[in-house]
Amino acid sequence: MMANGTLPHRAVVEHLVRQAVYQRLGRALPKPATGANPLVVNVSARHCHLTQEAVETLFGKGHQLTVHKWLYQEGQFAAKETLTLIGPRSRVISNLRILGPCRSLNQVELAYTDGIALGFDLPLRISGNIKGTLGCMLMGPAGFFEMAEGVIRALRHVHMSHDDASFYGVKAGDEMKLKIGGPCGLSLDKMLVRVDKSFKLEVHIDTDEGNACNLQPETPCQLIS
Amino acid sequence: MMANGTLPHRAVVEHLVRQAVYQRLGRALPKPATGANPLVVNVSARHCHLTQEAVETLFGKGHQLTVHKWLYQEGQFAAKETLTLIGPRSRVISNLRILGPCRSLNQVELAYTDGIALGFDLPLRISGNIKGTLGCMLMGPAGFFEMAEGVIRALRHVHMSHDDASFYGVKAGDEMKLKIGGPCGLSLDKMLVRVDKSFKLEVHIDTDEGNACNLQPETPCQLIS
Repeated sequence: MMANGTLPHRAVVEHLVRQAVYQRLGRALPKPATGANPLVVNVSARHCHLTQEAVETLFGKGHQLTVHKWLYQEGQFAAKETLTLIGPRSRVISNLRILGPCRSLNQVELAYTDGIALGFDLPLRISGNIKGTLGCMLMGPAGFFEMAEGVIRALRHVHMSHDDASFYGVKAGDEMKLKIGGPCGLSLDKMLVRVDKSFKLEVHIDTDEGNACNLQPETPCQLIS
Repeated sequence: MMANGTLPHRAVVEHLVRQAVYQRLGRALPKPATGANPLVVNVSARHCHLTQEAVETLFGKGHQLTVHKWLYQEGQFAAKETLTLIGPRSRVISNLRILGPCRSLNQVELAYTDGIALGFDLPLRISGNIKGTLGCMLMGPAGFFEMAEGVIRALRHVHMSHDDASFYGVKAGDEMKLKIGGPCGLSLDKMLVRVDKSFKLEVHIDTDEGNACNLQPETPCQLIS
């Protein structure tokens, strides 16, 4: 991935080349290539979002998250900082990545495979909707932070702008389907649509979903409304 | 699961009850209930199949696998015996379950999630087709056994009898689709059909596939040809 806002993302370049090639050949553009924006499908490995207060408890007073890698959505990054998560049966996940910037709530997003390893019965939730979920203990170099709630399996979702939403004929809160090809392809139902003017067209699935179909950079994907 | 051949499996009883209820109500049977046999979908966690020679190297001369749990297919069982698998980067998986009875070849079936953890680039193979795949080292209480090849991700597949094959209008080697419902449902493509007169109707998927859709005993599943 490129640093924030310097060069176009590889997916954007590929999308433009694909459109240009089809037009040069005088062939009809396949449906996924006709949109203004390329479809990017990314696998989110387990991670957490933290408040600035939690970051300071875990990493020390005044600590600011530092950028390890910029993500596809503008301004979002994987931080250099990682944590240890301690589950209800004292089982542990090390090197849990923090995504920045800080948010107004603490949330840990795990795959069901992680939940089974930890002994968590993970609820399936829309990111941000953590009321009544289980918590956990987080351990950083400067201290412990107890999350009272917020450990979830995030519902698969697609980020898009208003333009993308009109192209696909959907609105925020709708459900779409993502068809993933390849030798162990599958179609994911109930892909939640999230719309914001700042969003770039991007599907987020988790590691279980990505590994169920062995998603690779060249695997063909199609979003279906 | 029931012990081998004593009482009908719960899936069979549920299937008969469903058929009887629909008929009593005078309502048309839904497509999945019209077949002679119930559809059972089971998640295969990582496991291995071994030759008797490998079992004796690992567990001692003359050792016979012992039954931990009978599986749905007649005569197949999860053994009490487990192994430690040592991968190419010296990473380890403990408690790898052996499935019995012994076979004529050694094969380890992992999920892509396991492969990533171990540092294996797993090939997707039909069970039994292991030529040219990577091997690994297995460690048991009586010794080590080096597998020269045989570590794979098994292709998702459905076992069925000739009667089931004619009900679905498929033959051995065809591909079907499995539609799995629920709040994070999906459809698995390229479900390989395996036909044998001894087979009971059963889909085998791996833990990544099962966890991608949080498959539970009550999750509705439908096999589509």
